[in-house]
Amino acid sequence: MSDVPARVTITEEGPREGFQSEPPGIATEAKIRLVEALAETGVTRITCASFVDARRLPQMADAEAIAAGIRRRAGVAYTGLWLNEKGFRRAEASGLDLDPLIVGSASDTFLMRNNNRTPEASLADQRRMLEVYADAGLSPGPIYLFTAFGCNYEGDVPVAKVVACTDSLIGLYDERGIAPSALYLCDTVGAANPMLVSTIVGAIRERWPSLEIALHLHDTRGIGMANVLAGLQMGVARFDASVGGLGGCPFAGNRAAAGNIATEDLVFLCEEMGIQTGIDLEALIEAARLAEGIVCHPLPGRVMKAGSLARFRHAEMRQ
Amino acid sequence: MSDVPARVTITEEGPREGFQSEPPGIATEAKIRLVEALAETGVTRITCASFVDARRLPQMADAEAIAAGIRRRAGVAYTGLWLNEKGFRRAEASGLDLDPLIVGSASDTFLMRNNNRTPEASLADQRRMLEVYADAGLSPGPIYLFTAFGCNYEGDVPVAKVVACTDSLIGLYDERGIAPSALYLCDTVGAANPMLVSTIVGAIRERWPSLEIALHLHDTRGIGMANVLAGLQMGVARFDASVGGLGGCPFAGNRAAAGNIATEDLVFLCEEMGIQTGIDLEALIEAARLAEGIVCHPLPGRVMKAGSLARFRHAEMRQ
Repeated sequence: MSDVPARVTITEEGPREGFQSEPPGIATEAKIRLVEALAETGVTRITCASFVDARRLPQMADAEAIAAGIRRRAGVAYTGLWLNEKGFRRAEASGLDLDPLIVGSASDTFLMRNNNRTPEASLADQRRMLEVYADAGLSPGPIYLFTAFGCNYEGDVPVAKVVACTDSLIGLYDERGIAPSALYLCDTVGAANPMLVSTIVGAIRERWPSLEIALHLHDTRGIGMANVLAGLQMGVARFDASVGGLGGCPFAGNRAAAGNIATEDLVFLCEEMGIQTGIDLEALIEAARLAEGIVCHPLPGRVMKAGSLARFRHAEMRQ
Repeated sequence: MSDVPARVTITEEGPREGFQSEPPGIATEAKIRLVEALAETGVTRITCASFVDARRLPQMADAEAIAAGIRRRAGVAYTGLWLNEKGFRRAEASGLDLDPLIVGSASDTFLMRNNNRTPEASLADQRRMLEVYADAGLSPGPIYLFTAFGCNYEGDVPVAKVVACTDSLIGLYDERGIAPSALYLCDTVGAANPMLVSTIVGAIRERWPSLEIALHLHDTRGIGMANVLAGLQMGVARFDASVGGLGGCPFAGNRAAAGNIATEDLVFLCEEMGIQTGIDLEALIEAARLAEGIVCHPLPGRVMKAGSLARFRHAEMRQ
């Protein structure tokens, strides 16, 4: 396990990807309370809202109100997500921290069904976004590559296709003489497995040795943490996760299907392996329980139910 | 991942460890129905019941009735669990297949609290059990070592203690000039992590290179599948699991805490990595849904909710 990093950075996705997967109607104030609780745990990056069409996603109609309502804590980046220039302009006006991302999909069918774009049209959009970001004076941000490990429409996605899509997207940065801050390989539908994580991370690293690779993993089929381990063993040190496993999987066709890996389970895995996260696990477990109270149904996270091992270690010391 | 085995053997623990963690009152007929459904999936080893004191564990008072009721399928071992000679005699009389196990615990405190035995008294019991098994003409069976990765009373258990306990138990076989069929390292309370799995499996293998090591893992803190991966990478090819993740963790102090890793999630992990299990995942998912219907509450398994990836791959082939 020699490539395992000494420290990982976790971006908390619960307030964004989590709440947008819940039925509409969660109070803005409750969302803000969760963001503020998360910021107290040592999490340094929180995606707070999506700036997308409220007709398509009424759950995120209060994005601006969330941004305006959060009491900020120093050292924490409060970011948002958008998929086009209009969304970016809203995020810019909202006062949130800006992570100027561009997106792509390893599956053309997914790109068409989810974003209504051909690969060529999407690439043109992303080129325009880089121009918008440059005009706004922003440093280059990350690439999010959706369906990097497979897709519900196309099934398995060839590794060569993942590399080719990444190449096209990096080409947009090349055109401007800049480089992305990171590449997020997203397991959008929960199709990854540890072997595939190793293979794809390895193929990307071989081609772009200095590019930071991050993983956005879902636990749709129960092996999210095994995929995390495979990533850690490849030296991946940046992960997205959702407190309590908040959110589901819109692509599984089952309301009970799990979504993002649970942040506190990820923190537990890392800390038990001696990998620093900078996050207070006990405080994060409390935040997961707060999230569960907000959505009024059990969340899939495990450590939030069983607790950490800290109390048993204290017992040992007492003897 | 070069030590990953080409094939793994899974023992299905749901009917035993799963049902005994549920409140009493599940119909014997329903338990039998689940065992029979599991046997249809390609699972070759099913632990069907515990032969323990019905006053302590009323959930298993129908062990004999279960054993008598199962319609057997060729090629499947239908076994039971017992912790003393009295239990073994009941199992022997029940007609179930006999896997003549002995037990131990890496934590002395756990051994006293759970089995009411000092290490010396327990060792004497196990010595006696090996004599009983020999008299019954049985081939040597496996060792189950509880709390091999930590304990709720003693916290972390030193690796040297795990090796020393194994040494004492193997010594009992040595006395008779025989060897155990396998050593099951049990994560009884869900305290394992991938690093610890590698370390402990490595330490045992170094000392006893020809001993088959098996893992009995719980998903109490959400990283059971990462622990499986660590085991696979160390060449472990034998695992216990429970259909749907049936059963909880009596040591977590929370009814919602997860128990054994879910069999179908384990099968999914293996098959996606190209490791054969001999199990039909779709049939196993159906068995998990049957188990959920029997206990009348959601089970923690993930693949049983999201489904496998087979239907997406078929979609690809249709294009």
